[in-house]
Amino acid sequence: MSGKKVAVIMGADGDLPVMKPCITMLKNFGIEYEVRIISAHRTPYEAENFAKNAESNNFGAIIAAAGKAAHLAGVLAAYTILPVIAVPIKASALEGLDALLSMVQMPTGIPVATVAIDGAANAALLAVQILALGNGELSGKLKQYKTDMANDVRKKDAEISAKLDELLK
Amino acid sequence: MSGKKVAVIMGADGDLPVMKPCITMLKNFGIEYEVRIISAHRTPYEAENFAKNAESNNFGAIIAAAGKAAHLAGVLAAYTILPVIAVPIKASALEGLDALLSMVQMPTGIPVATVAIDGAANAALLAVQILALGNGELSGKLKQYKTDMANDVRKKDAEISAKLDELLK
Amino acid sequence: MSGKKVAVIMGADGDLPVMKPCITMLKNFGIEYEVRIISAHRTPYEAENFAKNAESNNFGAIIAAAGKAAHLAGVLAAYTILPVIAVPIKASALEGLDALLSMVQMPTGIPVATVAIDGAANAALLAVQILALGNGELSGKLKQYKTDMANDVRKKDAEISAKLDELLK
Amino acid sequence: MSGKKVAVIMGADGDLPVMKPCITMLKNFGIEYEVRIISAHRTPYEAENFAKNAESNNFGAIIAAAGKAAHLAGVLAAYTILPVIAVPIKASALEGLDALLSMVQMPTGIPVATVAIDGAANAALLAVQILALGNGELSGKLKQYKTDMANDVRKKDAEISAKLDELLK
Amino acid sequence: MSGKKVAVIMGADGDLPVMKPCITMLKNFGIEYEVRIISAHRTPYEAENFAKNAESNNFGAIIAAAGKAAHLAGVLAAYTILPVIAVPIKASALEGLDALLSMVQMPTGIPVATVAIDGAANAALLAVQILALGNGELSGKLKQYKTDMANDVRKKDAEISAKLDELLK
Amino acid sequence: MSGKKVAVIMGADGDLPVMKPCITMLKNFGIEYEVRIISAHRTPYEAENFAKNAESNNFGAIIAAAGKAAHLAGVLAAYTILPVIAVPIKASALEGLDALLSMVQMPTGIPVATVAIDGAANAALLAVQILALGNGELSGKLKQYKTDMANDVRKKDAEISAKLDELLK
Amino acid sequence: MSGKKVAVIMGADGDLPVMKPCITMLKNFGIEYEVRIISAHRTPYEAENFAKNAESNNFGAIIAAAGKAAHLAGVLAAYTILPVIAVPIKASALEGLDALLSMVQMPTGIPVATVAIDGAANAALLAVQILALGNGELSGKLKQYKTDMANDVRKKDAEISAKLDELLK
Amino acid sequence: MSGKKVAVIMGADGDLPVMKPCITMLKNFGIEYEVRIISAHRTPYEAENFAKNAESNNFGAIIAAAGKAAHLAGVLAAYTILPVIAVPIKASALEGLDALLSMVQMPTGIPVATVAIDGAANAALLAVQILALGNGELSGKLKQYKTDMANDVRKKDAEISAKLDELLK
Repeated sequence: MSGKKVAVIMGADGDLPVMKPCITMLKNFGIEYEVRIISAHRTPYEAENFAKNAESNNFGAIIAAAGKAAHLAGVLAAYTILPVIAVPIKASALEGLDALLSMVQMPTGIPVATVAIDGAANAALLAVQILALGNGELSGKLKQYKTDMANDVRKKDAEISAKLDELLK
Repeated sequence: MSGKKVAVIMGADGDLPVMKPCITMLKNFGIEYEVRIISAHRTPYEAENFAKNAESNNFGAIIAAAGKAAHLAGVLAAYTILPVIAVPIKASALEGLDALLSMVQMPTGIPVATVAIDGAANAALLAVQILALGNGELSGKLKQYKTDMANDVRKKDAEISAKLDELLK
Repeated sequence: MSGKKVAVIMGADGDLPVMKPCITMLKNFGIEYEVRIISAHRTPYEAENFAKNAESNNFGAIIAAAGKAAHLAGVLAAYTILPVIAVPIKASALEGLDALLSMVQMPTGIPVATVAIDGAANAALLAVQILALGNGELSGKLKQYKTDMANDVRKKDAEISAKLDELLK
Repeated sequence: MSGKKVAVIMGADGDLPVMKPCITMLKNFGIEYEVRIISAHRTPYEAENFAKNAESNNFGAIIAAAGKAAHLAGVLAAYTILPVIAVPIKASALEGLDALLSMVQMPTGIPVATVAIDGAANAALLAVQILALGNGELSGKLKQYKTDMANDVRKKDAEISAKLDELLK
Repeated sequence: MSGKKVAVIMGADGDLPVMKPCITMLKNFGIEYEVRIISAHRTPYEAENFAKNAESNNFGAIIAAAGKAAHLAGVLAAYTILPVIAVPIKASALEGLDALLSMVQMPTGIPVATVAIDGAANAALLAVQILALGNGELSGKLKQYKTDMANDVRKKDAEISAKLDELLK
Repeated sequence: MSGKKVAVIMGADGDLPVMKPCITMLKNFGIEYEVRIISAHRTPYEAENFAKNAESNNFGAIIAAAGKAAHLAGVLAAYTILPVIAVPIKASALEGLDALLSMVQMPTGIPVATVAIDGAANAALLAVQILALGNGELSGKLKQYKTDMANDVRKKDAEISAKLDELLK
Repeated sequence: MSGKKVAVIMGADGDLPVMKPCITMLKNFGIEYEVRIISAHRTPYEAENFAKNAESNNFGAIIAAAGKAAHLAGVLAAYTILPVIAVPIKASALEGLDALLSMVQMPTGIPVATVAIDGAANAALLAVQILALGNGELSGKLKQYKTDMANDVRKKDAEISAKLDELLK
Repeated sequence: MSGKKVAVIMGADGDLPVMKPCITMLKNFGIEYEVRIISAHRTPYEAENFAKNAESNNFGAIIAAAGKAAHLAGVLAAYTILPVIAVPIKASALEGLDALLSMVQMPTGIPVATVAIDGAANAALLAVQILALGNGELSGKLKQYKTDMANDVRKKDAEISAKLDELLK
């Protein structure tokens, strides 16, 4: 699996701030990534071309982020057998429920792996988990990430009394 | 506008019973129609080919029916400047809300004209309304349809007392 | 179809800021339009009069924007055979879901073409698509719009690396 | 107030079974009623005519029942100062939420008194409560109804042990 | 009916700003009103006492405003045969949907007349409509209100072009 | 705590089949219980009387089950300091969401412990957990119940292969 | 029951501001409490250890607060027979509906007592109600709290006229 | 990757009929699988043990299916770095929305790959896509599956006219 890249595709450049934690996470894990702005509806040929060549272009997973009637992940999945990970973006109305349902409710035959609304970091982690299969180094990093995360919670747990005193003053 | 056809495209043949009133309505108005099974996700090339050639193939409007994460209407709209009319189909869960939001919440630039969940007949009527612009004969038929519909309600209104007596017995 | 006007009808003047992109879009396409404040509930006679005379007043499509229990589009559609395009407005509660359902769930016989919540620009585009049927010049403009839109996405796609560097700093 | 009639207006005759308890309730209270099939969208002139003449035709309240994008109550309210009571009908999709929101979310200036989804009997009771203002006989009947209802619950409460034994067998 | 008062009951004094248009509307119509803070859960005896004496205290309608699990209207309705009008208040979560459903979905036998989320003014208008039955002066005021409202919309309709020029600059 | 009873109160006798697992569970744990039909809206005095005397009548917890605008639990909680456990019942529309929100969204000061829609058995278990505090025998039974439940899952886990063979035939 | 402690467990320290009223309430009632940051997903062993030892560590109730896919309460309940009280936290999307459903819809056998979204104070009160069973002093405090709360509403009710004059100016 | 197994874990054996297409799909792709009944709440130790040993037991992906407050996928993900795929099951209320939100809205750090409500087959396909990375044979099978699926749609598209004639008779 080593050497496989991850694509981060956004339907619009306005999604970039929400997707920053996704890109940072991939970077921190040392994963090679490519960030693209491709719209399922405005540049459908680019979507098709990207997706059908993604496997031969050495991608191992595709992360697709979009809001509203978020078709991007489904459209990419139509042209590839690579795992496609969907990030529903909370846009101006309906609290992101529209994007979530547009992404997760895929019909039989074309799966899309959906994460939480605005769940950018988890999309990256899921991609890393996929690439880590049979990759000892990456697996080790994931275990370390889990340990660090637990330690961070433990540290906050240890500090809570101090915070509390201030809060309850 | 005369001579323009209407396409009725379903994501799966299981949608046919729900879409029957759409086809019957087009038939009753004397509109030439073509019924197709094209999946945005399973036969994306067919979707692309159909949509980008629809204008030159003498279609005047495209009706797209799909359930769940219903991308079909949006995908077709990406490849054509013809009006695309979307019918969200109520599938096994979420009461059709998923299909409705997946169809209606399209991003700026690629409109889709969405009708009610399972609103097959209205999709046809909307297509007829579009084709009737500047077509006196078709406009006349639409006015007659409206008159007939009103008369039907009036007839039921006149008969209600009789029904009532039976119901309240 | 040439010479057909588009009506933009709002239930209240407070909807004007949301509807600005609709009016601008019609203007950019060189479509003649008329903007009106007509309330289905407060000025029902104006709604009736506007709708039943719209066809003879040379309108080709009616765009209706309203929030909450948004009856405007349905009420206008009751009196005309012209295509009525509905824009659900997100008002103070329920994230626009009330207006969306009040517009899209029309009963059989009276279709309304619903676009996204606050989808003002798409309502205009849908009207242009309808008027462009059999109008080569307008069709050409729509194709150019689609091309421009794709080029704009492509340009942003090309620029994304630069943006990214700044964001990830 | 004595002598005022109550109108029960349905958007379609298919709503009659759901509305039966409404009509029966009015009958049991000795209220004079008129049952009509009038569609806000299919027979809008009838809706207008009924509503604007309702006051002079000696109606004291109007009950309007409709499903999906239920505009009937709002349309009637636009033409009258009589209290309009709305019954959202649960139709084929969305569990009646569409009709509820289409009825209850009325804009300022045109109130509609909405009861529960399929709440036919309560619509009648609300009309009776309105007519009972300043009508001692009708007030007395309402108090008796409340007493009977309480006694019925008390009776069931007294019988519950017997039911329980059977159920738990 | 003349001389009947309207009660405006809020579950908490924090609801007062939302309910201001209700009180102003009653005042403008010259209706005698009483404003109270009574909580269904915190001061249940006050709720019971108010409701069971409301009729003999010369009230003609009770307006109840509450947020979240809004039981106030239903609790008052349990103790009176007067019409109870419910105003669901949008509180900190769920966009007011919780209060709407808690108020409108009343069981058979105890109707509550529900208006829109935060629909304070309409609650007052509904009360006025009820009191206006058989009261020529109040009926006249309601008709004038409707006329004024229509004229206001007509005035805004006439002014829209000027607004538009500024907006589109 | 020993000797404390649990009350199971239903808003209508139609809720009895849904609540059977609650009663059975209490019986199996050897808890003394009382089953009542009391309506917050139809028999409000019974609700008040029951709740305000529940503590002195040796109840330790009150389980309240109701559908639609389910006020029963909140109304009982207004009159007692005993823990009130709410079971939202799925009635004819809205899939039980109305009852859930009407029960769980209680305002500050009057808590209600809400379990799942139709979660009758869990309401009983929660009551048992409460009564088991400081009651060694009841605590022991709860631990045994948890063990039995785990063993039942383990048994089904062990049997799954056999089931599978049959299913996949 | 005297001497039993209450645990307040948060999934993240970001929940602390929302949970402050919970801690303050416990403090005001003189309940001994322990505040912890334990994540069901990031520190699952801590969750398990805390829950399975909670009974022997003299806890009488566990309050668990979490947002989004809020598993914390359910995970703790899996390892203990103590009553677990769940506070769904409103996070960045879906208005807290996700946390509410993730907490309240527990399967049969493992109850969780869910309070309102962000209902921190009520979670504490519910815990106090549970500990007060058979504890005369704590019961007395709860009754006093109820009385104070009622008096506070009564005071606001008495002051409303003054507020009103200012508001309506 | 070759030789990696896929786990299919259900919260209850009642989920088996819904999950059958998942197991059949894995079988058809020649993937070695293990089917288990493990409950996050009833057998939490089994969940922990399974998940923390899954990697060393040669699993490459874990599919978790559960209904209502579906914590199973999240609980398993807490103990493993393997990709966890979640299938929300539609249970007795809320149309599966509860399970969907309980699964997809995972907090940062612990991703879960969620598929559609009752989307059993797609969960299997997603697992196959993951295992196919760098596995030429499995990739080939996935491409063949996609081709077969497309051909099946094409066949139905070709047959639609015949079906239509029968339907419209």
